[in-house]
Amino acid sequence: MEPGRREREQSETNRLEAFSDGVFAIAITLLVLELKVPGKSASLGPQLIAQWPSYVAYLTSFATIGIMWLNHHRLFTLIHRTDHRLLVLNGLLLLGVSVVPYPTNLVASYLGTPGERLATAIYGGTFVYIAIVFNLLWRYASSAQRHPPLLRLAHDAPEVRAIHAQYAFGPPLYVIAELVSLWRPQIGMAIMLGMAVFFLFPPKAKGEG
Amino acid sequence: MEPGRREREQSETNRLEAFSDGVFAIAITLLVLELKVPGKSASLGPQLIAQWPSYVAYLTSFATIGIMWLNHHRLFTLIHRTDHRLLVLNGLLLLGVSVVPYPTNLVASYLGTPGERLATAIYGGTFVYIAIVFNLLWRYASSAQRHPPLLRLAHDAPEVRAIHAQYAFGPPLYVIAELVSLWRPQIGMAIMLGMAVFFLFPPKAKGEG
Amino acid sequence: MEPGRREREQSETNRLEAFSDGVFAIAITLLVLELKVPGKSASLGPQLIAQWPSYVAYLTSFATIGIMWLNHHRLFTLIHRTDHRLLVLNGLLLLGVSVVPYPTNLVASYLGTPGERLATAIYGGTFVYIAIVFNLLWRYASSAQRHPPLLRLAHDAPEVRAIHAQYAFGPPLYVIAELVSLWRPQIGMAIMLGMAVFFLFPPKAKGEG
Amino acid sequence: MEPGRREREQSETNRLEAFSDGVFAIAITLLVLELKVPGKSASLGPQLIAQWPSYVAYLTSFATIGIMWLNHHRLFTLIHRTDHRLLVLNGLLLLGVSVVPYPTNLVASYLGTPGERLATAIYGGTFVYIAIVFNLLWRYASSAQRHPPLLRLAHDAPEVRAIHAQYAFGPPLYVIAELVSLWRPQIGMAIMLGMAVFFLFPPKAKGEG
Repeated sequence: MEPGRREREQSETNRLEAFSDGVFAIAITLLVLELKVPGKSASLGPQLIAQWPSYVAYLTSFATIGIMWLNHHRLFTLIHRTDHRLLVLNGLLLLGVSVVPYPTNLVASYLGTPGERLATAIYGGTFVYIAIVFNLLWRYASSAQRHPPLLRLAHDAPEVRAIHAQYAFGPPLYVIAELVSLWRPQIGMAIMLGMAVFFLFPPKAKGEG
Repeated sequence: MEPGRREREQSETNRLEAFSDGVFAIAITLLVLELKVPGKSASLGPQLIAQWPSYVAYLTSFATIGIMWLNHHRLFTLIHRTDHRLLVLNGLLLLGVSVVPYPTNLVASYLGTPGERLATAIYGGTFVYIAIVFNLLWRYASSAQRHPPLLRLAHDAPEVRAIHAQYAFGPPLYVIAELVSLWRPQIGMAIMLGMAVFFLFPPKAKGEG
Repeated sequence: MEPGRREREQSETNRLEAFSDGVFAIAITLLVLELKVPGKSASLGPQLIAQWPSYVAYLTSFATIGIMWLNHHRLFTLIHRTDHRLLVLNGLLLLGVSVVPYPTNLVASYLGTPGERLATAIYGGTFVYIAIVFNLLWRYASSAQRHPPLLRLAHDAPEVRAIHAQYAFGPPLYVIAELVSLWRPQIGMAIMLGMAVFFLFPPKAKGEG
Repeated sequence: MEPGRREREQSETNRLEAFSDGVFAIAITLLVLELKVPGKSASLGPQLIAQWPSYVAYLTSFATIGIMWLNHHRLFTLIHRTDHRLLVLNGLLLLGVSVVPYPTNLVASYLGTPGERLATAIYGGTFVYIAIVFNLLWRYASSAQRHPPLLRLAHDAPEVRAIHAQYAFGPPLYVIAELVSLWRPQIGMAIMLGMAVFFLFPPKAKGEG
């Protein structure tokens, strides 16, 4: 209520965002360590072409982490206070984000081999997990039961309800991609890359987007 | 005293927090490099299952670094000035945090093998060290002998004394986990994972938590 | 229009810059992982000398990423609002920046071997890509058609037009370096290192530079 | 002169510091990758003891990068404007900082083997380079010839002259450590570790330190 208190809370959100930005930025940049330099025993060109699963996995993970960052960034323009549970939910989200390089490596190594079904399932499962935690975090932050509220806006403001509607799509879409992966791993990967690219296109522009 | 000076000090705390956030975020994200992609000579599933010590070590380290960050973040909502000794104590803390991926790797490689006792002891020892340095840092920052004080609050404010009480638990708990590790390494690991999960639960909510 | 809204937008630009700074800083620092410690089977000195392509690639990439950061930093002193497309263009830029360690590794491994033509072409191609995306990002941000504008300045301010002129040079210069690489890879690398060093020299100082 | 301009410059220093903090934080945390988990063919304990050069190199590099960060942080509480040359000098400094993990690896691998003289010389040379660039950066920033000045304080303020005096020590001290390394590598390393620890002790406290 008094200025000092509000300033302190502001600074808490800032550090939460700074720490999260750090984890997102590091996870997205560590993906490059998955791209391996081929050995010099054979010609470079064919070896690079044979690495195509690495490029698919790299691009899919890069775009997906990028979109997650964008979503995180948008949520926290609406969230202006934190509490312990929100910090824990954010931690569970960052757990998912920071582990992404590992299933990316799995897919890069196993796509096109007998282990591809399991590798793709773990990869898709990571995104299912992240989509679910994103929904939990958002529902917690926007709940009408928080006093004082964590959002800048009312829990039933149109902007808040628009996010509710939009977020409801994430988990089922990734579950579908996951199920397809169990049937045809390479089609599953194509769907996940397609979803990442699709989300890059702007929503119907109304003002600031 | 004059505005310029206060602003400069403010910015010093900001950079200390930014640098610390960076180290915490990088250490927590580098943990993923410990998760190794199995070779393609055998079936993927059984190899992934055999890697269970890696997952236990990953989750324990992730949760523990996350909790350390949360504690660091809370302390620095109370600390608003820095001096040389505080920077050095913070550096000793970051030394512990940034080394965590190494003992995590040790445990991931050696759990279930003859070297597990030593590996787990080094792992637990790292957390004992961090818990002790956290106490030293907090006691230094909250000491009644600092003029001008480093805290926003009086050294005997209830909020400050609550942290005193809470922090006193850290080192003995980790020493116990350490001693159990020397006797039964896998139980020691289970205790450390349990502690990390336990601390994730919110303290009894009174207001902002 | 109202203060709260402007503040929120300000904070969006801040997080975009913080996230981008993170990716630039991590990409530039991960380059060091490319420098390999020679094995102990032979004498250290000659092995280090034989690694000269690693040093050339390291310095070229470090200086080039550094210059890109400097350009990014300058653009965002002029850009004060963001929208979805700008975030996506920035993401495409960061994709290029964060992948740099991989072609750097390729060049470090293959310069002086039969694969050097392809390795250098991929390396140069990465910079052509980044230079093009930089131009797209800048042209989008400075377009007269954005309402409200994303820039602090008018789209035809001298400062803005000076950047237009300067940025027009980037892609053709890197295309030339790329073409030279296809003909003589080592001369191509020398041109890219030379360009990086050249851009380090300050423009003709007029005021703050 | 007008508020908008000053604010923009302020934000330039902020991003320079944020980017530098990122590089320092990543370089200091990447050092941990140098600590290798021993193979399981022999007993863990003796193998860990045999890795003592890794621990010496790790601690020395960690403490030295930490002190460099502390110095950088102090300089930029005094520097409030940037120009192109300062950014380039800062980039040359970050080049030195971000390369530290490589000579650290060299020393960790070669201390106690025939290549130790060269490895230690490269290690010490890196610190000589950084100490020189730090002096160049500070002398440039504090020069009486900058109009408008880059410092908050007058170029002959006591605080500025104290840093002049203190910084003059860095390069000769590291040159001495370097020369000792060429004669007795292990004594050279001991001196560099000793210097890092020595600098951790606070200067004679006068006020804020």
